Amino acid sequence: MTLPLFLDYSGIAVAAVSGALAAGRRQLDLVGVVVVATVTAIGGGTLRDLLLERHVFWIANPDMLLVILGATVATMLWTRYAPPPAKALLVADGLALGFFAVAGARIAEGAGQTGIVVIVMAMITAVAGGIVRDVLCTQVPLVMRSGSLYATAAIAGGSAWVLLREWGMAPEPAAAISTVTAVTLRFIAIIWDVRLPTYRVNHPEGP
Amino acid sequence: MTLPLFLDYSGIAVAAVSGALAAGRRQLDLVGVVVVATVTAIGGGTLRDLLLERHVFWIANPDMLLVILGATVATMLWTRYAPPPAKALLVADGLALGFFAVAGARIAEGAGQTGIVVIVMAMITAVAGGIVRDVLCTQVPLVMRSGSLYATAAIAGGSAWVLLREWGMAPEPAAAISTVTAVTLRFIAIIWDVRLPTYRVNHPEGP
Amino acid sequence: MTLPLFLDYSGIAVAAVSGALAAGRRQLDLVGVVVVATVTAIGGGTLRDLLLERHVFWIANPDMLLVILGATVATMLWTRYAPPPAKALLVADGLALGFFAVAGARIAEGAGQTGIVVIVMAMITAVAGGIVRDVLCTQVPLVMRSGSLYATAAIAGGSAWVLLREWGMAPEPAAAISTVTAVTLRFIAIIWDVRLPTYRVNHPEGP
Repeated sequence: MTLPLFLDYSGIAVAAVSGALAAGRRQLDLVGVVVVATVTAIGGGTLRDLLLERHVFWIANPDMLLVILGATVATMLWTRYAPPPAKALLVADGLALGFFAVAGARIAEGAGQTGIVVIVMAMITAVAGGIVRDVLCTQVPLVMRSGSLYATAAIAGGSAWVLLREWGMAPEPAAAISTVTAVTLRFIAIIWDVRLPTYRVNHPEGP
Repeated sequence: MTLPLFLDYSGIAVAAVSGALAAGRRQLDLVGVVVVATVTAIGGGTLRDLLLERHVFWIANPDMLLVILGATVATMLWTRYAPPPAKALLVADGLALGFFAVAGARIAEGAGQTGIVVIVMAMITAVAGGIVRDVLCTQVPLVMRSGSLYATAAIAGGSAWVLLREWGMAPEPAAAISTVTAVTLRFIAIIWDVRLPTYRVNHPEGP
Repeated sequence: MTLPLFLDYSGIAVAAVSGALAAGRRQLDLVGVVVVATVTAIGGGTLRDLLLERHVFWIANPDMLLVILGATVATMLWTRYAPPPAKALLVADGLALGFFAVAGARIAEGAGQTGIVVIVMAMITAVAGGIVRDVLCTQVPLVMRSGSLYATAAIAGGSAWVLLREWGMAPEPAAAISTVTAVTLRFIAIIWDVRLPTYRVNHPEGP
């Protein structure tokens, strides 16, 4: 298995774990859990492929759906016997964020895009699945709640990829370093609650 | 009119009824009602067509939009003179679920997809429109609320189609039987509140 | 710069302003503000381009993203020194509604669509970005809240375009008149709280 493919499968598996945990908090039935886990895992990549006019990855490669199903069932079995650690959902979501950001950047580059579009695709791939998960579970999307370097971490991963590739690095090490960059930044933000400055505006009267 | 086309128009009409009823509960204005009914009726099929790289069905065949308009206006007139039965929205939604699941399966098969992708397309076509309806009306999506065999009914309809077609059945009877399968399952779940086991996980601390 | 292009850039800039103001009310961090502003500005046109099987406009022309970034930063700087007027968000949103409706109509016509599809594309282009903005900010979408001629104004702009073009008017004046039609209608509705009749249905029991 090549490194990019390994990163793709890893991203899909951990995203499915985050979706299953979110669904478990809402006490969905077993099929509902699989649906939410699947949407979380394929949402971002699906949107990326539609935007780039590529074949949708999980239609071209339906094995992906079995990886999602396996990760979801494993999560349900595991949490039946041991409660998940406090931040299990955040950790799974943060790993998926890093894997997906770099998958998005790599695929956008392969589709001939450059610079800003590559970085935007990294961000879309990384955050869209989690947004759909949270809207379905009627939670405020993590990307909106946390403030703590969520979209920022995805953009950092995408930017690292663009820079490293521009400097001539091969795809495998560039993918590894960019993924670590995004995940590290997100985890630092989770652990120490690091935040960018917020923008606040008072509307004297609003719609 | 062929049977598949009849099933498509029926699905779109009852989905529009469910959308109009949902909009009426939110007291939208007349144009808003038409917008919600339209989104409910075309949402699932539109996503299916984008994923399968087909022409979007209602752009290829704008008459569909007139069917939606007719069903919406009829619903508004009808409920002006008689309050809708208690479960009118659920019944309309359940019928649309069955029609759309089988339309999705049939079209995915026609696009050369097999097995799991056909079933996933059945589910997406069946549930996406209702999700958008409920998000717009700021309701928890029915697929998340009910627990009661919602996505499950769509998956059953898609699976019935795959099996019957594999056994060599012609499209017309296969479509009829699969639709009845999905709708019956959903209606049984509504009437007797049948549920699959739920999955519940306690997060000691959550995001 | 041609008039259509000028209208496109204007629509994107004012939509970004409305997104930044909505994000500021939710106290997002600086990157989150840019993300919401971007989604608001590109959401409708992106959906339109996917439906019409065109290249997505901001991938074909990434300069658009810089216009959005500029408008967002300008909004953050401006509101730092002076609170925005009471209806700033509604005004920016209403202008974007008009610009986007006519951009959608014009592009649908250029893609060979006619009549009802052109008008539906005008509406989708005009309202989709604001819906995503409001769902992300966990607000009830403006199109659902206001009642006050929101989708209606977009449909009026699209219909004006179809009529004027059918009467043989050149694109530039037709675009100008249609934009003014939509924006005027929306602003009248905001100022005097004009509403269409609402449709209300009492569900004796609901899902």
